[in-house]
Order: sequence, then C-alpha cells, then structure tokens
Amino acid sequence: MKLATLRDGSRDGKLVVVRRDGQVHADAGAIAPNLQAALDDWERVAPALEALAAKLESGEIAGSPLDPAMLESPLPRAYEWVDGSAFLNHVILVRKARGAEPPATLTTDPLVYQGGSSRFLAPRDPIPLADESWGLDFESEVAVVLGDVPQGVKAEDAGRYVRLLLLANDVTLRNLIPNELAKGFGFFQSKPATAFSPFAITPDELGDAWKDGRVHLPLHTNYNGALAGDPDAAEMHFSFFQLLEHVAKTRSYTAGTILGSGTVSNADRARGISCLAERRMIETIEQGKPITPFMKIGDTVEIEMRDAEGRNLFGTIAQKVVAL
Amino acid sequence: MKLATLRDGSRDGKLVVVRRDGQVHADAGAIAPNLQAALDDWERVAPALEALAAKLESGEIAGSPLDPAMLESPLPRAYEWVDGSAFLNHVILVRKARGAEPPATLTTDPLVYQGGSSRFLAPRDPIPLADESWGLDFESEVAVVLGDVPQGVKAEDAGRYVRLLLLANDVTLRNLIPNELAKGFGFFQSKPATAFSPFAITPDELGDAWKDGRVHLPLHTNYNGALAGDPDAAEMHFSFFQLLEHVAKTRSYTAGTILGSGTVSNADRARGISCLAERRMIETIEQGKPITPFMKIGDTVEIEMRDAEGRNLFGTIAQKVVAL
Repeated sequence: MKLATLRDGSRDGKLVVVRRDGQVHADAGAIAPNLQAALDDWERVAPALEALAAKLESGEIAGSPLDPAMLESPLPRAYEWVDGSAFLNHVILVRKARGAEPPATLTTDPLVYQGGSSRFLAPRDPIPLADESWGLDFESEVAVVLGDVPQGVKAEDAGRYVRLLLLANDVTLRNLIPNELAKGFGFFQSKPATAFSPFAITPDELGDAWKDGRVHLPLHTNYNGALAGDPDAAEMHFSFFQLLEHVAKTRSYTAGTILGSGTVSNADRARGISCLAERRMIETIEQGKPITPFMKIGDTVEIEMRDAEGRNLFGTIAQKVVAL
Repeated sequence: MKLATLRDGSRDGKLVVVRRDGQVHADAGAIAPNLQAALDDWERVAPALEALAAKLESGEIAGSPLDPAMLESPLPRAYEWVDGSAFLNHVILVRKARGAEPPATLTTDPLVYQGGSSRFLAPRDPIPLADESWGLDFESEVAVVLGDVPQGVKAEDAGRYVRLLLLANDVTLRNLIPNELAKGFGFFQSKPATAFSPFAITPDELGDAWKDGRVHLPLHTNYNGALAGDPDAAEMHFSFFQLLEHVAKTRSYTAGTILGSGTVSNADRARGISCLAERRMIETIEQGKPITPFMKIGDTVEIEMRDAEGRNLFGTIAQKVVAL
C-alpha cells in the first residue's frame, strides 16, 4: 500500500491511503490519526490500512482527488533520521572533491551520520536558502522507515523491521562541510532540513525490485528541467539490512526511525549524478576544474522512481530554491 | 514548576507535576497526556500546569507519593537531541586523551553533535553494556528543552525558546570513538542511549542561578559511591543561547528538541571530573599513564544538582552498568 500525510494544520498531519495510481486518496483517520501513531501500533493498524487500500484499489471506495501540494513528508517530523552513505562511487567522488581520502574501511565499515529530524520539508516545499555562498546541493536517496528495532539485530534478521520505503532529498550545504568536519564532530549546520517523497510504500509494492535489502530500480533526478541522472539504486554496497546491523550495534530504535541509503550513485558515468558535488568532481577530473555551480535561488530539482511499467512509485519530490 | 513522566506502559509515559520537595506528584493527564503534547501546545498548557503545581505546593491538592523507580526520562523519546561541548576544559582534556588537537576555532565556534533521540534511558534504568572493551563512560551534563525555534534566531533572543531544564548522562563508548571519528562523519555507535534527570524544571525554579543562558550551580557526580566531581556549570564557555544561535543557523526546530551543554568541566582540578576520560587524562599528565579503567559491569553513577539551600533540583540520575 501507499501511505501519505495530508497537511491539516496539525504538527503531524493526517494519515491517508493513496490509490496505486497516485490520483486518489482515502482518509485513514479512523484507523490512526497520523503515520507516527500508525507505526507506534503497526501490528494492529497495518491490516486495517491494507483493507482500506484494497477497497480504494477495487473502486469499492471512490476516494478524493489528491492534490500533491497538500502533502507533507510522510513523517513531517521523526524521532530519528539516520543516513548512510552506502554508494561507494559517491563517497569516493565527494571526498576527492574536497581533497579528502576515502576512509580506509570504505568497503567493510558503513558510513552513517545522524541527521536532524524535528522538522522535515514537504515534498513540494521550497528550499529556503539564506546565503548562496553556502553551496546548496540536492542529494537523491532511497530510505526505509523502521519498526521497533532491538539492539544487536543482525543483517539476516533486519528485513522484518522494514515497514515502509520512501525517497529523500538530503539537502546539503557543501561549502559549510570542510570547516565543520575539521572540528571532528561530523555534519551539523551543513545539513539543513531534508525533504521526503509524497508516498511511503510497503515493500511488497516493489515486487521483485525489493531484494536483499536494496531497491533494484533507477532513481531519476531532474535539475532545472533536464535529466541529471538515473543511477540504479541496486548498486548500494551496504544493503539497508547491513546498515541496520551497523546502527543497532550499541542501541535500539523506536518505530518511525528513518534510515537512508546515502546519495544514489553508479560507477558508470553514463548514468549521471544524484548531486551536484559529483558532477563538479567529474568536471574537475575531465576538464581540470568544476564548471557547474551549486544551486542558486530559483533552481529546481525533481526526484522520482518509476517501476518497469513506468508507474511513479513514490510520487515526485519537486522543490525550488527560494531566498530565506 | 517541576514536571516528570510516569511509566504507564505507553511509549511517551504520563505527564505529572511534582512538588518542589520531589516527594509527591499530581496527575496532569487532564491537561496534557504527556510532556511532548504539553510542549506542542505550551502557550495553552503551561498556565494550567503552573496552576496545578501551585495547588500541590500549597497543599490544596495532597498528591500521591512519588516512586523514583517509576519515572521515565521527562521525554522518553524526543524529536531531536543536539549536544554541545561548551566546557573548553573538557574539550582540551578529552582531545589530548585521544592524541588529537583541540580545533583551531575552539573559543569562537561551538562544537555540537547530533545525538540519537528515539529511545532514552530512564533516570534509574541500568546501562546495558554488551562489551566492556568498548570503554563505557558517563558524561554529566546540563540540558534545556526548547519550544519551536525559527531558523536564524540570535543569542540575544534565544532565552524565550527555553522551556525547561534538566540533567543528562550522555553515555559514551570511548574506545569506539577513534575509528568512528577517523571516518569523518562524527559519533554514531560510540553514543548509545542517553539518560535524563527525573525532573524537567522551568527556568524560574533556578532563580538567580539561571543567568545569561547558563546554570550557576555545581553539578555533582558520584562514581561507585564516591564524589567524582562537583564542577560549576557556570564555567560554560558558550552559553545555551550561543549554542542555540549556532544550531539554528541553517534550520528550525520543533518544540521538545533537547539541547545539551556537553560534559560539565572546570579548569580548577580540585573540582574533580564529570567523566572518566578526563580523570584518565589527568592521570596521564601527572603519572605518565591512565590508572582508572572505564566503567565495568556493576559500576554505578549518580548525577544531581542542588541549589544553595541543598534542595535536589532535578532529582537524581542513578544508574548501574549491567551486562546486555
């Protein structure tokens, strides 16, 4: 099933079920007021949501037209946003871009950072930018929403804790990163609010494309109306299951925690990019210096993923940069 | 007023108001079901909670005896836990201990890290430890709970966003830090679940001791029954107001975000320590090598803060290390 969150003036929005074609929704408020409440009580709530989704799909319930501008991120705020960096091609290129070496344990020890989670942007929210010199960049990612995860879970058991999948634009301020990382405590100011896709979907919606803790489909990013890249998300070096084992080594997680893949990136240059930092590094390698600037006021980015039949699985993240 | 959260089987617990002597509580469920709900609607809720607290103080309401073992951390889970490191003596000693230099911007640019916030330990919960070789350490801190914070807030306006104060034990796995920081993304596995004090109190409870965004009182830590330190929390180099300006530079925060001071530490060695890493570094300086081991199964730590009259302001964090 596809779930979404309608803007209703409350902090957590209103939970709705969305028809597979993304055109129509049904109010799920009688089952759970919002997505966090549904995740808090998933065993009881999920079957009722599935039943509602089946009625919407069969036409037994007509539903109401869905206005994408009225959608919040599925979780407008979450108790935790943990983002991996599991596409090695991205790690190698971005580190090279800032004159840093990839970590010695690149292929054996996952990179993850703890993101801010108290206020996410909606999928069509503008990205507010106070200063263009901060070097605004998009980062197109896949992410999973977890159930309650006990400490010490192993990768082979991790699949049972994946409740939903969604896409993310992990907005980054590139020019704030070097000074911040030099201090040793990781990202902070360089990671403003992330935006997520309109729909969070259950793994079964992906069919065979959800396999071994990876999504085996290309992720499309348009930058200012032109295709920037469509790398295959299957090239994820550490699967979501391996990332979950890594992050659960020393603590447990509440239902509703979001775990991201990191920027989707393929070694095959023909697949393009999911962030401007990669393009700038490729330009540096090929032409001696970066040509593409970071995002400016008025720039747009669109992120979506389609299945083999061309269906837009998660809806489209569509954001424009505006002056704060 | 003093607020606390009673364990009631729910994820967020039940909000109660606590009498100033910490002995008796009154159910605040008719005002707000839990502390997050109260913070979400603070303008409406706070006056009703204050009125209830006044009745409890005057004896108009008798209240019920408070069992500290029944208390969760005031927010058992939070939308964000941002921890500064604003005591420079701590930064200098701990960096020296792991052979690292303090950052060049030590006195001008605050250090903060994004902590995990989806599951906190209760103030009397044991600290589960899977492996003693990880180097478990306590870190005694002061923290504030914020209201809704807009992006771009300045230090001079930050006071209005401080709703509550509390204490924290920011549990750390010291021996996991070096490899983790070498990867460049900051702490992750090295920061297991944090515990907070039994009571979250409004700033007015501190009287003159809440000044310029700092708490002007000593923070007591007992380790295995002996006083480890009582450094003055007033020696915070960056105030909570300055920390808030720093973290709000590029994003906003939902009510209920917790902002920590970092380990309380004084340059005066006679005031002792609030974490074992400092003691080990002092031993290395004075005796050539660290003598004190990190925490072992069975070890205990107690953290509390008393006012000039000896009243225990936040209740006592009292934890024992147990094998996971």
